[in-house]
Amino acid sequence: MSFSPLIRQLIDSLRILPGVGQKTAQRMALQMLERDRSGGLQLARALTAAMEGVGHCQRCRTLSEDALCPLCADPRRDDSLLCVVEGPLEVFAVEQTGFRGRFFVLKGHLSPLDGLGPEAIGIPELLARVEAGSFSEIILATNPTVEGEATAHYIAQMLAGKGLSMTRIAHGVPLGGELEMVDGGTLAHALAGRRPMGA
Amino acid sequence: MSFSPLIRQLIDSLRILPGVGQKTAQRMALQMLERDRSGGLQLARALTAAMEGVGHCQRCRTLSEDALCPLCADPRRDDSLLCVVEGPLEVFAVEQTGFRGRFFVLKGHLSPLDGLGPEAIGIPELLARVEAGSFSEIILATNPTVEGEATAHYIAQMLAGKGLSMTRIAHGVPLGGELEMVDGGTLAHALAGRRPMGA
Ligand SMILES: [Zn+2]
Ligand SMILES: [Zn+2]
Repeated sequence: MSFSPLIRQLIDSLRILPGVGQKTAQRMALQMLERDRSGGLQLARALTAAMEGVGHCQRCRTLSEDALCPLCADPRRDDSLLCVVEGPLEVFAVEQTGFRGRFFVLKGHLSPLDGLGPEAIGIPELLARVEAGSFSEIILATNPTVEGEATAHYIAQMLAGKGLSMTRIAHGVPLGGELEMVDGGTLAHALAGRRPMGA
Repeated sequence: MSFSPLIRQLIDSLRILPGVGQKTAQRMALQMLERDRSGGLQLARALTAAMEGVGHCQRCRTLSEDALCPLCADPRRDDSLLCVVEGPLEVFAVEQTGFRGRFFVLKGHLSPLDGLGPEAIGIPELLARVEAGSFSEIILATNPTVEGEATAHYIAQMLAGKGLSMTRIAHGVPLGGELEMVDGGTLAHALAGRRPMGA
C-alpha cells in the first residue's frame, strides 16, 4: 500500500496494541486522521504521561503513579483478606468479580529456567507485606498454569506456620489458561470455591 | 474500577480508537504499561507527528504530508483512469483490489440538509483535476448509499459533454453499505463490472 511515511509509521506503531493487526491499524490511523485529530493528540499525551509517569504502588506493587494505588488507599476494603496475583491485569480480573480485600502483585511467576527466582518476582516484598498486615487469609490466585501452581506452592511453604489460612482459587478455572482471559462469572465461581492449601 | 488517574486517562483516550470498548482499552493500557513502554512512547510520537503533520495531497486530496502523495507521485500508474471516492479510507479499499489508475478524493458526499454542497465536498477541485489530466474514463466510486448515488449523478452531469467515459461501480456492492467495509473480492468484482453512466 502507498501511504505517506507519517501515516505508515502511525500504522506500524498502532500494531503494538494487543489484538491490532495490519488492517485494523490502517482503519484506526485513517479514521483518526479524517475524523478525530484532537482525539489522536489527546491519546498521544495520555500515552506519554502514562508511560513516563506510572510506577508501582509501594504497598501492593500494582501499576500506579501515586505511592499508594486507589485500592491500597481505600479504607473501606477488607484488611483480613490478601489476594496474591501475577500481575496488574490479574488485579483487574479479580476485582471484576466483586472481591473487596487487598492485593499483592507479583512480577509474574517463578521460572527457574529463565533465572527468575523468589527475589526476581517479589516474594521478599510479599513476606514483608504479610508481616506488616493483619491478614487472616491469603488467597493464592496465581495463574492456573504449571508455573503458577508451583509459585503458589512455594508461597504457601514460605508462609506456613504463621497461623494464616492459605487458599487457592479452584473451581472453574481452566487448567493451562491465563487468569486475565477468564470471564468474570467463571472467576467469581473459582474465588467462591477456593480451598485450603497445605504447604 | 480503581485505576490511578494516569491509567484511567489512558484507558479513556484509547477508546477514541474505532472498535475499542472499555474492556479492550483496559487490556491495551495495562499490557503496554507492563510489557512495552517504549512501544507506547513510540506510538505517542507517531500519533503526534501524524496528527500535526499530515495534510492533503495537492492533486488527489487524499491524506499525505507531502505535496504529492505516493499514489500521485508514482509515474507507473495509468493516467487514463480516474477513480473518484468519498474519502481516504475508500482509496485504500479500492487500491486493495489491484486498481492501478489515479484517484480523486472528495470530502464525503453531497448533503444539502447538512449544508454540504458541491464546493464543500471539493467538486470544483475535481473538475480542475479532470481538465488538467488526460483521462479517458472517470470511475465514480462514491459509496452505494442514496447520498453517494446522488453525488455520482451530480458529477456525471457536471462532466457530461467532455468526451469522457463515465462509469459507476456496480455488481456486488451491497446497497446502503459503506465502501470501506466491503471485502476486497466483492469490490474487485464491482470494479470489473462497472457500467457506463448517463448524466
Ligand atoms: Zn496498591
Ligand atoms: Zn495524491
